[in-house]
Amino acid sequence: METRIRQSFAKQSMMQTFGADLTRVTEGEVQITAPVLPGSRQQHGVAHAALTFALGDTAAGYAALTKMPNDHEVMTAEIKINLLAPGTGDYLRATGRVIKPGRRLIVVTAEVHAITDAEEKLIAILQGTMVPVAL
Amino acid sequence: METRIRQSFAKQSMMQTFGADLTRVTEGEVQITAPVLPGSRQQHGVAHAALTFALGDTAAGYAALTKMPNDHEVMTAEIKINLLAPGTGDYLRATGRVIKPGRRLIVVTAEVHAITDAEEKLIAILQGTMVPVAL
Amino acid sequence: METRIRQSFAKQSMMQTFGADLTRVTEGEVQITAPVLPGSRQQHGVAHAALTFALGDTAAGYAALTKMPNDHEVMTAEIKINLLAPGTGDYLRATGRVIKPGRRLIVVTAEVHAITDAEEKLIAILQGTMVPVAL
Amino acid sequence: METRIRQSFAKQSMMQTFGADLTRVTEGEVQITAPVLPGSRQQHGVAHAALTFALGDTAAGYAALTKMPNDHEVMTAEIKINLLAPGTGDYLRATGRVIKPGRRLIVVTAEVHAITDAEEKLIAILQGTMVPVAL
Repeated sequence: METRIRQSFAKQSMMQTFGADLTRVTEGEVQITAPVLPGSRQQHGVAHAALTFALGDTAAGYAALTKMPNDHEVMTAEIKINLLAPGTGDYLRATGRVIKPGRRLIVVTAEVHAITDAEEKLIAILQGTMVPVAL
Repeated sequence: METRIRQSFAKQSMMQTFGADLTRVTEGEVQITAPVLPGSRQQHGVAHAALTFALGDTAAGYAALTKMPNDHEVMTAEIKINLLAPGTGDYLRATGRVIKPGRRLIVVTAEVHAITDAEEKLIAILQGTMVPVAL
Repeated sequence: METRIRQSFAKQSMMQTFGADLTRVTEGEVQITAPVLPGSRQQHGVAHAALTFALGDTAAGYAALTKMPNDHEVMTAEIKINLLAPGTGDYLRATGRVIKPGRRLIVVTAEVHAITDAEEKLIAILQGTMVPVAL
Repeated sequence: METRIRQSFAKQSMMQTFGADLTRVTEGEVQITAPVLPGSRQQHGVAHAALTFALGDTAAGYAALTKMPNDHEVMTAEIKINLLAPGTGDYLRATGRVIKPGRRLIVVTAEVHAITDAEEKLIAILQGTMVPVAL
């Protein structure tokens, strides 16, 4: 399972653009970490909401994939993000979790933390729906 | 107003990373267009959902900003995206609109289309809340 | 189609509790209207958000059903509501619309207006996902 | 604080229509329980999504209120519900929690369980934003 997820992740050029790493893969939970690169920022120099979203959505999607048979992928049908604080940090770390697996829909959540040497701060929560797609 | 928005947009390094352009700014409606660059893709080579989200959220945010006094900015409090179709196209074009301006909250929507020579296809809709921030 | 929808609607005891009526059924768009009954209110005496939600969600669901074959129903997988103004009015009227029909998911929106003799005011917008269920 | 919340709850006629009780009030967490009354059902005789929503949204709102000074109320700005399973049960129990309190926005979540003698089942999760309103 982890191999399959790592191969899929490696094919996402957006994750490379963001310098993102798959930092944990367990059944029902996946963690992705990325630096706040110079090219990933909004007008005040902190992480753009699109980076926060990208990591949260992708972690949630791969968490869903850990519950799928080998011949399936998942796609995001919809997801909602509440931004709690600016993305001020050296790294962002997203943790995606499966709340309810299903044959037709997988309900997921994610949390995103901004990380510096001194602190880890929760900056966003996401709640969404993934759909299985047969390969 | 348009000058202020263009200056803010130019400071978002993420928009440069995506090659995005502000292609229309009118009161209550802003359009952003970006190519699907080689570095903006998911595992099947089409636009990553994070690109779709980034353009939709940013267009909606600047649409909200057109309703604000000069000494304010806006931040996304929350936004939800429903993905309707894969981001298969040469360009994505997001159109953000203000549904309900307010002193404390601005409710916004956005549509994102994938564009090729042959067709324009609606690939995502967003609905969210922006909050004014005094500079 | 309209007969099928009216029969289903008549079986929803919640709609009777709210005094709700199916006031328009066309392909891809359904309207439901309900008085703000004494028992449907929040602590300030205006319509409870649950009434606004109930009408918007149900109108969106039946709009989706107009796109389904006779041997299917739909269920709400998820839906989001942004409340724009208090539910101050004699009636609420919800209009549900299909944005993207599909075999597996139907993406819908709804608007809810509060209505008095003097005015119609947009009080809520909804965006969600319905799933077809074979009977 | 609990007195204030109980007084507000008692004024919500919709909660009486649903037979709902405030079954726990602690700082940052509020629980509401309601039977699935004959008048609260959808076309198959189980709890209507509007009941699930009403309890989840109201529990989340009062959880936010526990974090507010005495001269404030809260209103739902927006909330999203993912429905995980049909509302098949004798009672529904909603638990609302504050994720991030704030002076301008309070981010909340809620879980709703359907309860029978034999089991408690998670049937919905909600994620939303409450706004403080000065009295």
